[in-house]
Amino acid sequence: MTLSIPTISLDDAKRVIAAAEAESSTQGQPSNIAVVDAGGNLVAHVRIDGAWLGSIDISINKAFTARAFDTATKDLGDLAQPGEQFYGIHASNDGRVMIFAGGIPLERGGQVVGAVGVSGGTGDQDQAVAEAAASAF
Amino acid sequence: MTLSIPTISLDDAKRVIAAAEAESSTQGQPSNIAVVDAGGNLVAHVRIDGAWLGSIDISINKAFTARAFDTATKDLGDLAQPGEQFYGIHASNDGRVMIFAGGIPLERGGQVVGAVGVSGGTGDQDQAVAEAAASAF
Amino acid sequence: MTLSIPTISLDDAKRVIAAAEAESSTQGQPSNIAVVDAGGNLVAHVRIDGAWLGSIDISINKAFTARAFDTATKDLGDLAQPGEQFYGIHASNDGRVMIFAGGIPLERGGQVVGAVGVSGGTGDQDQAVAEAAASAF
Amino acid sequence: MTLSIPTISLDDAKRVIAAAEAESSTQGQPSNIAVVDAGGNLVAHVRIDGAWLGSIDISINKAFTARAFDTATKDLGDLAQPGEQFYGIHASNDGRVMIFAGGIPLERGGQVVGAVGVSGGTGDQDQAVAEAAASAF
Repeated sequence: MTLSIPTISLDDAKRVIAAAEAESSTQGQPSNIAVVDAGGNLVAHVRIDGAWLGSIDISINKAFTARAFDTATKDLGDLAQPGEQFYGIHASNDGRVMIFAGGIPLERGGQVVGAVGVSGGTGDQDQAVAEAAASAF
Repeated sequence: MTLSIPTISLDDAKRVIAAAEAESSTQGQPSNIAVVDAGGNLVAHVRIDGAWLGSIDISINKAFTARAFDTATKDLGDLAQPGEQFYGIHASNDGRVMIFAGGIPLERGGQVVGAVGVSGGTGDQDQAVAEAAASAF
Repeated sequence: MTLSIPTISLDDAKRVIAAAEAESSTQGQPSNIAVVDAGGNLVAHVRIDGAWLGSIDISINKAFTARAFDTATKDLGDLAQPGEQFYGIHASNDGRVMIFAGGIPLERGGQVVGAVGVSGGTGDQDQAVAEAAASAF
Repeated sequence: MTLSIPTISLDDAKRVIAAAEAESSTQGQPSNIAVVDAGGNLVAHVRIDGAWLGSIDISINKAFTARAFDTATKDLGDLAQPGEQFYGIHASNDGRVMIFAGGIPLERGGQVVGAVGVSGGTGDQDQAVAEAAASAF
C-alpha cells in the first residue's frame, strides 16, 4: 500500500507569503518569510528590503521546525526551557531547531501539510506576522 | 593483548526495535527508534508512519549519547541543567549530545554493548518506549 | 488546492530492506541499507553485522540523493565527472550528494515515492543489492 | 567617505523570478529559482511544484557563487576543471561554490548588484532559465 500525504503547492505558499508581507508592512518591521512543505523542504522564501540578514536562516528553520515537530516554535520553546522536557532540543538536527516564536504549522483537513516561518522583529512581531500568514492558508 | 568488546548484533537490534514499535503502537504515539552499537555507530533505525521528521536525528543521537556516556539521556539531562556540572555538554560532539529522556544504554553481563534512542512523543512517552525496548534486550 | 504526493510506508521500506539483506547475504558482502520517503527523509536503516562503519552515512545519503534528483546515483555519477554538466554537484547539499553506484529511486504508478541506498561493497555489489531491493518494491 | 553599493530590491527579485518561472514552464521542466543581493545573501526563492528537492540548495548556492565571484557559474566551471587554475574551488566556502551552469550575475550600470541561480534540469535548461531571468532584470 502506498501512503499518500497532502502537501502545500507553490501557489498556496505564495498566498501565505503575501499575507505575511502585508502584515509585516502594516507593522513597519521588515521580515524574512519562508514556507516549507510536508517533507520539511523549502517551497518559497522572501526577504523584505531592510530585513535582518541573520533572519534568512532563522525564518527557513522556524518553518522547518514547525513541520518537523508539528508544533508552533513558540510552544516548542516553552517545552525547551531549562528544566523542561525538551531542554536541549535546539542542539539537534544540526542546529536547525528554532525554539522561539515565529514558526507555525499549516494545516488542512486536520493534517499538517507544511509550515511558515517568520523572522525579523521581536518575538511578538514575528508571531503576529506568522499568524497572519497561517490565516491566509 | 588484544582487547575484545561485546557489542550488539543486527538481530538483537531488530528485536529491541520490534519491542519499541509495539509499545509505541500501544501508546498510539508514532516514534522514531534507533539502536547504536558499542562504538556508538548506528545499527538500525525505523520511523513509524506519521512520526515527527525532526525526531529522526534525535532518536539516532539519543542512542549515540546514551552509549557515548554510558548514561541514560534523562539522567545526563539532570546533570546538564544550568548550574549543574555538565551544563553546556549539548554543544559538544557537533551537536549530537541529547540531554532529554528517551536514550538508554543496553547492557549485557554488566557491560554496555550499545544503546537505544526513541523520539516522537513527550519525554515520558519516549522514556516508556525506550524502557520497553531495553527490556527486550 | 492541496497537493497530495505518494510516499513510502514503513512496511514497504522493511520489505525493500529485507530483499536487500537477502541479496547482500547471497553475495557474502555485508551492507548498510537505507530507505528514504518522498520528502527525502529517512524511513529505515540497517547495518548488517560487519559492514563498513563509513557506509552508514553513505547508504543514507545515496538514498537521499536518488530521491533528491529522481535519478540513480550511478547515472548521476556519469553526469558528475570532470567536464560533464553536473561536475561539482557532490559539493552541494552540505556534502550529502553521493555520485557513485548504489542509490535507486523507488517508483509506483510512474511517480518517485522514495529511494533506497546501499553501501558496503564495490560499486557493482552495491548496485546489485540496491536493484534487488528496488525489485521488491 | 562612506561607500555605497547598488543592490537588488525584493521587487526586482520577484520580477526576475517570475521571468524564470515562465521560461521553466515553457520548457516543461520544473525549477528551483533563487536571487541573492550584492552581499550574496538570499532575497527570494521559489520551488516550482515537482522540482527536484536537491535543487533547493543548489539554486541558492548557484546564485551565491555567481555573486561571490561576479562570474557565471558556467564560466567558473570551465576554470574549475582538473588541471585548471581554480580546480578545487568547489570545496571552499563550506561547499557553497557551485561550478556548473545556472548561476548568473545581475548587473545594472556596469555593476554586479546580485545574482540569480536556477536548478532542476539539465545544464542547458538551467542556463536558459537563468538567462531568461537575467534578461528581465
